[in-house]
Amino acid sequence: MKNILIVGIGTGNPEHLTVQAINALNTANVLFIPTKGEAKAQLAGIRRDIVSRYVTRADSRVVEFAVPVRQTAERSYHHSVDQWHAAIATAYERLLLEELVEGQTGAFLVWGDPMLYDSTIRIVERVRALETVAFDYSVIPGITSIQALAASHRIPLNLVGKPVEITTGRRLSESFPQRSETAVVMLDGEQAFMKIDDPDAWIYWGAYLGTEQEIVISGRLADVRDDILKSRAEARARHGWIMDIYLLQKGADFEE
Amino acid sequence: MKNILIVGIGTGNPEHLTVQAINALNTANVLFIPTKGEAKAQLAGIRRDIVSRYVTRADSRVVEFAVPVRQTAERSYHHSVDQWHAAIATAYERLLLEELVEGQTGAFLVWGDPMLYDSTIRIVERVRALETVAFDYSVIPGITSIQALAASHRIPLNLVGKPVEITTGRRLSESFPQRSETAVVMLDGEQAFMKIDDPDAWIYWGAYLGTEQEIVISGRLADVRDDILKSRAEARARHGWIMDIYLLQKGADFEE
Ligand SMILES: C[S@@+](CC[C@H](N)C(=O)[O-])C[C@H]1O[C@@H](n2cnc3c(N)ncnc32)[C@H](O)[C@@H]1O
Ligand SMILES: C[S@@+](CC[C@H](N)C(=O)[O-])C[C@H]1O[C@@H](n2cnc3c(N)ncnc32)[C@H](O)[C@@H]1O
Repeated sequence: MKNILIVGIGTGNPEHLTVQAINALNTANVLFIPTKGEAKAQLAGIRRDIVSRYVTRADSRVVEFAVPVRQTAERSYHHSVDQWHAAIATAYERLLLEELVEGQTGAFLVWGDPMLYDSTIRIVERVRALETVAFDYSVIPGITSIQALAASHRIPLNLVGKPVEITTGRRLSESFPQRSETAVVMLDGEQAFMKIDDPDAWIYWGAYLGTEQEIVISGRLADVRDDILKSRAEARARHGWIMDIYLLQKGADFEE
Repeated sequence: MKNILIVGIGTGNPEHLTVQAINALNTANVLFIPTKGEAKAQLAGIRRDIVSRYVTRADSRVVEFAVPVRQTAERSYHHSVDQWHAAIATAYERLLLEELVEGQTGAFLVWGDPMLYDSTIRIVERVRALETVAFDYSVIPGITSIQALAASHRIPLNLVGKPVEITTGRRLSESFPQRSETAVVMLDGEQAFMKIDDPDAWIYWGAYLGTEQEIVISGRLADVRDDILKSRAEARARHGWIMDIYLLQKGADFEE
């Protein structure tokens, strides 16, 4: 048997690493690091930094691999993602077959936490279903971008006793404010917050959280949304890529 | 000025501690640990273990304090929580006045992450509003019970591209399955999952996650809910207290 560790590494700050994650990285013979694209280049740099900071065993190897690019032309969103996952599963299968010998352990360094809008677990399950390589795996949690956002703004996520919805830019219009008083929005390529017209909505926005480029802006949505749009566009132009997340909220603690 | 650190410590496994949290605990002159009640006793034990494992500076002190108990008689839920927070704020104010001198740092060790169904941030803001003691504060994220649940079950939280609702036992009936395909349920004293009658619902349940008593059960809700009820009652009787959380889900990846 081979062994796979899916290790959450937090969202940019190398100090997000947990003791459990550090120990996991040190049991691995091979550390798998994805590379490709402008964002991926900086993210791969952070992963390499984490390895050089925390991996103390001398005999492990880093293996970088190119993540296949998602094809969107003439496909539905779901079909596109499904094909993409299949292509990544093939890449993982090759890594497990070629880079690990029997009894060895390989670790995938996953941005944030593997449970949250990340497909490493799903793809590893696809590789298992291929039945071409026998392995077991475990998952180690990591600090998510939601936690980095809340910590930087020093805010609770939920109102007292109230629910929170986590959603994507694509689906925000179904959610806030009519369905959820509190919504966390991730994967927003379209600045969906610009379409929310609610005078009582507040926004807590953050980009590049945990990294040296971190930017945070908060306030009444109507007052700050143009600032956010401008800061976001400027930062994106400067760095060539952006990762951002925000919390939208209306209502207050102790209101029914 | 005094300085307060609100430090997330994860949910039972001392290896959930992040490097950032360990460094924060080591900048504190005083470490505040809540005590009281049967559950609190074991949780205080875990906090003490964390301090003895990771705090390497020799000159810091541990100060244990009793958390006021919430009064529920003849009060609405919100009124009861509001009064309770006011009482805790008074306790915190006293700690800051009596246990810290000017320029010193105190750390509150918070279960899981301070953003999630935890009121330390809110209460610290209440103490600030009293204007009786000048201080600044920062928040350090920690692994939540949601992440511990997902890692133990080796599952993604969300279906591909889909939202997730985080809610409480009290509010589950408003949420799953009619509003949310995926719901994480916390703070459930009433086993609200027993009232869900949906043949397509799956449950991923976990108790005492991260600790040596950890129990996990998963399966089709209709098939496993009686097992969960039984295991929960037995474990609760054995330990005198329980902390549990679960994910309810219906639908699958790549379905519209
Ligand atoms: C594919 S998801 C991965 C999420 C990750 N697994 C986590 O736990 O945060 C990528 C999205 O996460 C958010 N994100 C991740 N890291 C971030 C960071 N450092 N700052 C702001 N947003 C971030 C953004 O919304 C981005 O579109
Ligand atoms: C007051 S909330 C605090 C949550 C905490 N701040 C976090 O980040 O997980 C307490 C609830 O969290 C969940 N919980 C916390 N720790 C847990 C554990 N170790 N195992 C299972 N559930 C846990 C339970 O649903 C419990 O009712």
